[in-house]
This record gives sequence, C-alpha cells and structure tokens, in this order.
Amino acid sequence: MVVVMSPEATDEDVAAVVARVEGVGGEAFVSKGVVRTIIGLVGDIESFHHLNLRTLRGVADVHRISDPYKLVSRQHHPERSTVWVGDAARRVPIGPDTFTFIAGPCAVETPQQTLEAAQMAQSAGATLLRGGAYKPRTSPYAFQGLGVKGLEILTDVREATGLPIVTEVVDARDVPVVAEHADMLQIGTRNMANFGLLQAAGESGKPVLLKRGMTATIEEWLMAAEYIAQRGNLDVVLCERGIRTFEPATRNTLDISAVPVVQATSHLPIIVDPSHAAGRKDLVVPLSRAAIAVGADGVIVDVHPRPEAALCDGPQALLGTELRELAQAVRQLPPAVGRVDASTRAHIA
Amino acid sequence: MVVVMSPEATDEDVAAVVARVEGVGGEAFVSKGVVRTIIGLVGDIESFHHLNLRTLRGVADVHRISDPYKLVSRQHHPERSTVWVGDAARRVPIGPDTFTFIAGPCAVETPQQTLEAAQMAQSAGATLLRGGAYKPRTSPYAFQGLGVKGLEILTDVREATGLPIVTEVVDARDVPVVAEHADMLQIGTRNMANFGLLQAAGESGKPVLLKRGMTATIEEWLMAAEYIAQRGNLDVVLCERGIRTFEPATRNTLDISAVPVVQATSHLPIIVDPSHAAGRKDLVVPLSRAAIAVGADGVIVDVHPRPEAALCDGPQALLGTELRELAQAVRQLPPAVGRVDASTRAHIA
Amino acid sequence: MVVVMSPEATDEDVAAVVARVEGVGGEAFVSKGVVRTIIGLVGDIESFHHLNLRTLRGVADVHRISDPYKLVSRQHHPERSTVWVGDAARRVPIGPDTFTFIAGPCAVETPQQTLEAAQMAQSAGATLLRGGAYKPRTSPYAFQGLGVKGLEILTDVREATGLPIVTEVVDARDVPVVAEHADMLQIGTRNMANFGLLQAAGESGKPVLLKRGMTATIEEWLMAAEYIAQRGNLDVVLCERGIRTFEPATRNTLDISAVPVVQATSHLPIIVDPSHAAGRKDLVVPLSRAAIAVGADGVIVDVHPRPEAALCDGPQALLGTELRELAQAVRQLPPAVGRVDASTRAHIA
Amino acid sequence: MVVVMSPEATDEDVAAVVARVEGVGGEAFVSKGVVRTIIGLVGDIESFHHLNLRTLRGVADVHRISDPYKLVSRQHHPERSTVWVGDAARRVPIGPDTFTFIAGPCAVETPQQTLEAAQMAQSAGATLLRGGAYKPRTSPYAFQGLGVKGLEILTDVREATGLPIVTEVVDARDVPVVAEHADMLQIGTRNMANFGLLQAAGESGKPVLLKRGMTATIEEWLMAAEYIAQRGNLDVVLCERGIRTFEPATRNTLDISAVPVVQATSHLPIIVDPSHAAGRKDLVVPLSRAAIAVGADGVIVDVHPRPEAALCDGPQALLGTELRELAQAVRQLPPAVGRVDASTRAHIA
Repeated sequence: MVVVMSPEATDEDVAAVVARVEGVGGEAFVSKGVVRTIIGLVGDIESFHHLNLRTLRGVADVHRISDPYKLVSRQHHPERSTVWVGDAARRVPIGPDTFTFIAGPCAVETPQQTLEAAQMAQSAGATLLRGGAYKPRTSPYAFQGLGVKGLEILTDVREATGLPIVTEVVDARDVPVVAEHADMLQIGTRNMANFGLLQAAGESGKPVLLKRGMTATIEEWLMAAEYIAQRGNLDVVLCERGIRTFEPATRNTLDISAVPVVQATSHLPIIVDPSHAAGRKDLVVPLSRAAIAVGADGVIVDVHPRPEAALCDGPQALLGTELRELAQAVRQLPPAVGRVDASTRAHIA
Repeated sequence: MVVVMSPEATDEDVAAVVARVEGVGGEAFVSKGVVRTIIGLVGDIESFHHLNLRTLRGVADVHRISDPYKLVSRQHHPERSTVWVGDAARRVPIGPDTFTFIAGPCAVETPQQTLEAAQMAQSAGATLLRGGAYKPRTSPYAFQGLGVKGLEILTDVREATGLPIVTEVVDARDVPVVAEHADMLQIGTRNMANFGLLQAAGESGKPVLLKRGMTATIEEWLMAAEYIAQRGNLDVVLCERGIRTFEPATRNTLDISAVPVVQATSHLPIIVDPSHAAGRKDLVVPLSRAAIAVGADGVIVDVHPRPEAALCDGPQALLGTELRELAQAVRQLPPAVGRVDASTRAHIA
Repeated sequence: MVVVMSPEATDEDVAAVVARVEGVGGEAFVSKGVVRTIIGLVGDIESFHHLNLRTLRGVADVHRISDPYKLVSRQHHPERSTVWVGDAARRVPIGPDTFTFIAGPCAVETPQQTLEAAQMAQSAGATLLRGGAYKPRTSPYAFQGLGVKGLEILTDVREATGLPIVTEVVDARDVPVVAEHADMLQIGTRNMANFGLLQAAGESGKPVLLKRGMTATIEEWLMAAEYIAQRGNLDVVLCERGIRTFEPATRNTLDISAVPVVQATSHLPIIVDPSHAAGRKDLVVPLSRAAIAVGADGVIVDVHPRPEAALCDGPQALLGTELRELAQAVRQLPPAVGRVDASTRAHIA
Repeated sequence: MVVVMSPEATDEDVAAVVARVEGVGGEAFVSKGVVRTIIGLVGDIESFHHLNLRTLRGVADVHRISDPYKLVSRQHHPERSTVWVGDAARRVPIGPDTFTFIAGPCAVETPQQTLEAAQMAQSAGATLLRGGAYKPRTSPYAFQGLGVKGLEILTDVREATGLPIVTEVVDARDVPVVAEHADMLQIGTRNMANFGLLQAAGESGKPVLLKRGMTATIEEWLMAAEYIAQRGNLDVVLCERGIRTFEPATRNTLDISAVPVVQATSHLPIIVDPSHAAGRKDLVVPLSRAAIAVGADGVIVDVHPRPEAALCDGPQALLGTELRELAQAVRQLPPAVGRVDASTRAHIA
C-alpha cells in the first residue's frame, strides 16, 4: 500500500502514520517530495486494513497496490485451470485447451420445449445444456420459473440427451435441491454480490458458473469468485455477459476485453454470453465469433424451438439459419486460434 | 404499447401483429407512415407481454408506454405517503411534511461504541438510529458484522436512548430474527435485486428502507419496491445512495435528481445517504444540505465516536465540527423549504 | 509519482527504473515489499512524463499522485476567486460571497423573443443574460443559430435591459467576433476538449464560462480550464451541467457533488445548469434549490416567453409559476447558506 | 413519431396535438387506451421538430421512431460502401470485402522514428500509415505534435514506402493544409462533436476516418458522419475506439458490438482501434482478433520502434513479438470470416 500525504501534512503527521504501521509489525518507507510525502507500506496487507489510515490527519489518499484476491489469482497458480462438468458417465471440460459450447432455453417451460431445445443445441454441437428453473425477474408479475418441477424436467432431458445441465440458483435456501439435480450451478448477474448465495454455492460440491454483475468491475467479480473459492470450491467458471453503459443500441455492452484481462490475472476459465449482453439475436453470431477469437473458453447462448412462444427472452433466442451459422463458427474458428471443440475432449464412460 | 414495424414490413406482417393482439382481447390501431407503420396497442398490458411481438416478422421495435409498477405508483395513489417507524412508545414519521435525520455507526462493533455513536446522533438531532449487524462486504476477508449479537447490542442501545432502530438484512433466512429486533429493515444496494430477500422483507411486518442499487435505474428500483409491496407491505422508504459512473472523485455519483423524479411518479417517501454516495466525510454536509433543499424526506449518515478505529467505512464517518454543522443544517434548512423536523411530529407515548 | 513493480520484477528491473529517474535529475525511493517493490519518485514531475516508465520491463503500473493542473489549482492560490462580468457600466460578480442568477433563452431567435425573455429573466432577479447565437446541434438539419445577427440582437437587448451577456462560441474562428459583442464567452459541453477553441478563448480578453463535458471527469474539466488559464486568462467560471450515465429518467445526471469537489481543489467559481442537466422543466426548481444549498456560486437556466414556439430546448424552458418559484428560491435560500444575491454586489456606474 | 399523453390529459389536449400536427400538413392517428392515449404522427418528420409537442398540455412524452440520419443510412443505400484511400499511384480499399490493416506511430516525432515505424508497419502487412502531426492532449503541458513539419515528414515517408497516409486534424483552420498533405483525414474522439471541424472535413475533398466520441452513442456518431456527408463527402470510415464506462482495467471499454450494430443501419465501413481502447499493449492482439472475427473492415494500431522513448502513448505501442502475432492474425483470420487482405485488392499503378 502507498499512503499519499497532503501538501499541508506536518512531520508529526508523517510520524503518526509510520508509528501506526509499525505498531502492527509493518515497515513504512518515507519518500519526501517537493510538494508531497508518500509512504510505502510493506508487510501483511490484511493487518493494514484495520488501521483506517485514511482517517489520520494529513493523509490525502491511500492506494492499494496488490490485488485483493488470492485463491483465484494467477500469482500463485500460474497454470490456467480446467473445470470439468458432469458425472462419470459424461464429463465436459471448460478450460484453456478447448472451446465449450453451452446452449439451451432461457427458461424451462415444458418437457417438450426443453427436450426440443436440448436437441437443437446438441445438433448444433453443444456439449452442455443450459435452462432456467428459477428465474430472477425484474417484475414480480413476470414468469418466475417452474422451480423443482423445472429441475425434474432438466434431469429427464439430461437422461434423454446425455448433456450435463447448468441451471441458475437464485436463493441460498435452494442450493441443496439445485445441487442435487444439476451438474453445474449458475449464479446470475443480479446475484453476483449476494454473498450468502456465493458461500452456499461454495459449499455445494458442484462447479459454479459465475456471471459478472452487470455493473461490477472485473476486480469485484474476481472477489465474488474468491467468496466461492474461500468455501473450498475452486471449480468456478466466470461468464462475461455485458455491462451497463450509456449505449442504448444493445441491452448491455459486451466487455470483450474482460476475457484477456481476466486471463492475465486469474487462473479460472472464462466464457462469454452474447445472448444476454446484446438482447438481440442478430448480434449473437458475430459476438460469438468475437468471443472465440479473443480467446474465451466457451460461449453460452439461448436457443428455443419457438421463440415467439417463449416465456422469457424470446427475442434473443436462436433457431434455424442463425443457429446453423453459430454451429459452423463453433466448429471452424476455435482451431484457427489453437483450440479444439470441447466434445473432442469430453470423457464419456 | 406501441409496435414499430420495419420499413420492409409487408401488409401481412402488420396483419399478423394485429391478429395476435386481438387474439388476447386487445385492440390494435394502425398508423401507416411514409416509411414505417406503427401500431398502438390498447388493452390489458399484462396479456401483451406473453405475445413476444418482437419475434414476429417485420417488427422492428416494441415500446412500452406505461409504467410497469402499480402499487407504488402515484397514479392511483396521488397523495404522497408517510411511513411510521417504531412502536407505540416512540413512532417517527418519514414523509412529505417532515425531515427525518437518521444517523449511527456503519457497523455495530461493541456495546460501548454503539451507545456512544447513538448518543452523538441523538445530540445532533437524529430521531432514528442506524447501525449494521450484518455487513455485505466485497471481500470475504473483511469484517462481516456481529450478527445476532449485534442485534442485541442495538436493542440495548434503543432501550438506553429511545431511538428506534434501522438495520440491514442481507439474507432471506435472517429476516425473521432481524424483524424481531429491529424497527425497520434495511435492504442494501447490493441486494436491491435479490428478489427472494425483497419478498421476505415484504412479509416481515416491518417497514423497509430500500436502498437504490448502485447501478439500478429509477424504474428498476421502483420495481424492487413493487416486489415488497406485492407481498402486502406498503411501508417502504426509498433511499438514494449514489450510482456508479465514470467519475472517480467520489465513490459513487449522488443522483440528486432522483428525489424529484421519484416523487413525481411514486407516493413512497425518499431519503438520501450522502455518506455512502461520496465516501468522503468532507462532502457529507454540503450533500445533506442539497438533499434537504431538493425536497428529500430525510437523510441517513454515518457517525462514529472514533473513525480511526472503525471496522467499516471510517473515512466517511462524521464527528466533531462536521457533525455540528450537519446538526445545524438539519435544524435550519428544512423550514426554509416548508418542512418541520421529524422529531416535532414523532409520537411519544 | 509511484512506480509499482510486478511480482516477477528482478533487481535489475528496479535498478533500471531508478537509473532512468536519476538520469533526469529525480530521486527514486525504493520500498521492497514481500510480494512487490514500489518506487516513490521525487522531483520535477514534468520531466518524468517523457520517461515512459510504464514501458520498462518489470513495471506493472505508474500512479500519478499530484494534480496535473497548476494555475487553476487551489494549492498555490488558497483564496477562492471572484470573476467579474460586464463593463464599467455594470459589473456582476460570480464568486464565493454571492449567488449569481443567469437566465435567458436557449437560442436567440428574434429581437422580440430575446427582449421578452431578458425581461422575464430580469424580473425574476437575473443579473446576467444568457442566449445562444451559435448553437452546436447534434443534427445538421436542426436550427444552427443566427450567428452575427444573433450577437447584434443580444447587444441591443443588453442596451435595453442593462444585463451583461453570456453567449456560446463553438468555433475558434468566431472567437474575435463573439468577444467583440459579448461580456462573457461560453464554451459548451461538446467543446470542452476542443483545445484550439480553449486557447482562442484564453486569448480573447473576456471571462469564460466553461461547461463540463458531459463525459468528462472533474480532473479533465480542470485541465480544460488550465488550457484557458495557460493563455493568460484566469477569469474562468466552471459550470456543472450533468454527466452521461445509464439513468434514462433525466437527459443527463446532475453531478451535484462536483460543486464541493471542485471547490476543494480549485479556486475558480463554479455554477450549475439544471435546465440542460435534467432536460425537464419540472426539475429545474428543485435542482436549483439543491445547487444553492450545496454551495454553488450561481445557476444558469433557460427561460422563454413561449416555450411551445422555441427553436431549441423548449421543453426545459421556464415561465409563469415555475419561474416565480425559482425567483423566490434565489431570493430566499442563498442567505440561509451565507451568501447574498449577486445583484447586491453588482457595481453599477 | 409517437406522442404519449399523460393519464390526466383531456380530449381538448388530444385535439390540440392533432391540430398542431395537421397545421404543418401531417396526419395524426389517435389510439385511446384505458389509461393513456397515444397519437401516431405520419408525414414529414422535419416539420414536426419545430412543433415542440412536448411543451403542450397533457403531453407526457414524444418518441422518435425513425433514425435521424439519412445520407449515411443503409435504408436508401442497402449496399455497404467501400472507401478508397490514396491517389492513382496506390489506392487502398476499406470496405466489406477486404480487411485493412492500418498502423504507425501515435505521434510523428522525427523523420527517422516515423520511417522506422512505417517500415515496421509495412513489414507486418499494413497498407496504410497512421501518424499524428497535430495531437489533442488533455494537458496543455504535454507534447502537442510537430504540426506542418510533421505533415512533411509523413509525405516523405509516404514517398519512401508507398503507404498512403491517415493523419488527424484537430482544428477547422488546419483542414486545408492537412488535406494538402494527407490521403485521409482523421477526426479524433474528442472532436467527434466539433461540428465546424466536421463540416470543414466534409468540404476537404479527402476521405475521413471518424473516430467515435468516447461517450457518444452510436446514433450520435452516425449523426456526426451525417454532418460530413451533408457537405457532399460520403467517403467516411467509422472507427470504434472504446467508450467510457465504470471499468478501470482498460482505458476505455471496446464496444465490439458497435461493429455489427453499425453495419445493420449504415452503409459506411467501420474499423476498430484496439490500441486506444485498451491502452495496454498486451490486449492489442486479442482485441484485433476479436475485431476481425466480429466482421470489422479493418484495424488501426500503434507501432513504435522504441516505445520507451515515445512522446505519446508509448505503453500501447507494439513491436517485436506482439507485432509478429498481429501480422499473423491479420493474414490468417480474415479468410476464415470471408474476407481478403486489403493489399490484395489495392490498386497499384
């Protein structure tokens, strides 16, 4: 940490900072400038947090220098991780060597719709099935999902297709029942800072797909992953899904740079959700191509057999031509950037 | 709702939209322009949501015209509401005629610190005590609050000072125990879209202080209030606490305009939190003055007897000179804008 | 400046940074941490900028510690400045002791409309007249202003009313003609970073009203003021007019905190434009009240005798009841925060 | 346009809107809803702008439905355009069939540095040379460019390498001299709304590279292009270079979605500037790959023979390994998305 003193700070003010730092066993290096003095702190960062240095007289600012996350950092874990999803019968990797295509309906509505969507996804090359049984909706009057009934539909469809399931959990109280049915728990954008839910997911024993909060910085997102990791679960896959900006042409602005930024600082895999970022199906294929090219470890997209009858996010669901184009991109582009399709490496019993 | 057709839309495309709307009992008024056709929809909006009109051929856009919230809207409830906090012994109003000053420590740390902070708050004119027993923290390694022990400290301090208590709840599972101790539940900025928590608070039987999500639009915030109201609880007070923008000089940007904007569309009271918006104590007094002048129904600020020893947000806690300046502003400015101090109207048994 | 080395940096990397700093006569203080080394630089900041330290091996980041502006900084000019507008016949102050009310039409349309608007403004208590002869418009098909003809109308109206004139200049080539007619040049939000225009205004010999770029940080805004000051003109008044955020309820988000933030770091006066920030006339009165209470040195608002016929920004122009309410606020609130109406201190020959 | 009446609007209010619209030759279609009435306007949009409908009693809102730009719209020009840069001796296309690689130093510093950078760029496959002679800098104390001397260096380097030149113009007064030397004028992000400069560029007779304002919506950006087009110059290439958001990990957030969004509504070519968006050279290669894959018509990047000695933006300039990686991506990826390298189609006399 670096403490910046204000130009008016006196020598006693500087001494007070030094004394406080030394009082918890740290070292303080003083650099007296023409206008300002700065003090570099060396030692156990955690112990410095409780010092409230910013409240001391003469202190203008305190800059944190190190990253605040540890378990998810690449610093002591330079190798990028692969997370495996599914059971012994079929395990699918998400990681640096492969490109994983996840698809399915935004919401589980009926057994028939879910099965059809899963078959569409599978034909297009998807190796994991997404589908929501619990839906966080902005309006209390909107469809909130089928709950446990939806989870049962998903497990039936897994049986029929062999695709492991990723599904969202929105309440810490539901983690056990969702973990019992699903292969991977999804934490949605609105719950990225629901710390109780993160901790429950960390104790669930299942891999977690952690979407970025639509207004979270990359650092806050990695701290949310740290919450899960801190409960003993390092099987976390990050998912960039667009951030809130002033631009109205898309629902959110896909922060494509987040992929290489995360990969430079964390060992966790990272995938992209172009459907929710854009909110427009005509952008899903070009954004998926961009995700592959920038180096993402996978994409997750909405498909629906009849978007005009969808109970949730119909306008962004793919079918027909667009799904075929996406299938083609997922087959052809990953090899051009040094990856193989995840299905090639999936372990099938 | 208004459906905007694309320039290429055919007469059949228009007819398909009309048919779909009429199929659920709505009326569709077609206006054919030189370039585009627009279709005005009249009828039950709820029934239109499931039509997925945006997925139909030739549809370029669908504009919602009405506000999506109902119970919190001023449309059928033109009179602005007053929410009363506290029990028969001491009830404090928050509403259009008064100005309510809420103060206390960011976090409950010890009985002594909480009592001292409460006495500072009370001397400065506060009629409600804030203080956190459950703290949502960005880092899993930061102080997370004392939990039930903290609630007990708060009730002891209430007994000692007579000040009703506002305290945060961060997990739906904790709502019963928090509601048992507190006079008002606070939902924090990170949980504004935690719908399970909103619903639990709606069923708690206690008034709710609902902070704006730091990246929520005003409409989304009112929809969050609607979640609480829909469970039968209309005793909701909104709290503007700054939004995330590109400006780094303050922790968040206080959206002062949100006060009159909310008051124009909702009957719920609205207060301002200048401490968390700014993150700097030198801004708390001027921003509190601005809040009073713009027409807010109250302010909520951090005070701490020893900010340099605070376990949470020390740099923004007031004491000494600044607290006296704030006390003076809260006494003198509200009458200049047609309000009385809430303590004048508090009901004391 | 502080140089943060990456965890992998070697001793030679650190030595290379030190050598480079010393090579331009600076001093480098090295603090070796457990994980990282940080280096505090002392000396002439300007000479460090050309060192490109960020490109050296092992350098993770470079933090600037000092403010980059000098002439507009409060550091060597602790007293807040007053800028006087107008000639010997009538000089109006904008500064820390007074509250200055500036009003007029968004655009000068006709002699009659401008005179009526000026008389409305004057009756409401305004001591300076605003009005645009050159309008920067988003669309090349929108009304672009009357140009020199508009300036002549303004000088006629100044003669008739005695009100000094503030008017916008949008092109460096027009600075001489605008400076010849106007008492104060306005640089609009879209031109805040038009450096050639800033320099021309700096050489014009007239005071300048510098609006904040709608997406400029406070620091960038003060640097724009520095451009004007660097050409020898310190008569700069800053004007906060809202920043671009994700919130759609208002045209921009008025950053009310910018007022005390600027006052803490710069000696320049700062006023608020609530009309352009909100884009809605129902918010102009409450936001003007907030501006007074937060400590602004003035407000600038749109008035128009017939908003429904205005060629520019009609929806935000005040008249009738709202203007009377504003007039009352401008009379009554400033004394409550320790200021007098600027007209009290205006020098009239 | 659609006029939305407020719930309290009377029949006379509606009639007043209708009368006003019909008064300028328009048609008004009234749809009476249960709560609100909406009015669809048909006719000449331009004539409606002067009606100030939003100021009429009972009007809650006015929604524009059509795009405000015309000449740059794809509506009446469905074929996507190709812009050719250079003279008879060497003309380089930027458009839908090719992928154009533009590179060079951020600033022209010396003949030697510019020539070396141009040779690096050319070896890596670039067919156009970028380089700034006029630099818009946030600080008046930073290097502002060599001006005419810089233009002369550029023309010498063009002679030596055969690469046509793209260079920035920051002031309308400089357009003639820049147009005399350069093959393409660049309008930078800070000048996107400098309408006088846009118009001067529109009259220059040279193609224009129009960077997106860092806080401009896509619609505002297309309106800026319309300003140029309206002066008779349709040779405009758009350049996405990142927008300002809350995320601090990158200098700006590259809005990769802007590429397909623009291509859906405008016929103008669009390229991407990953260097200025990210501000970090380690992101330039992955973001360039993303740009190619998403369908951009080109990229423009910074290269410098000695980044550690650069007078401007050294930290983002490529050389060595990264430039070779970029060269490889520019050769290999475009064919994978159906494009050829622009050099293949360049016309060389």
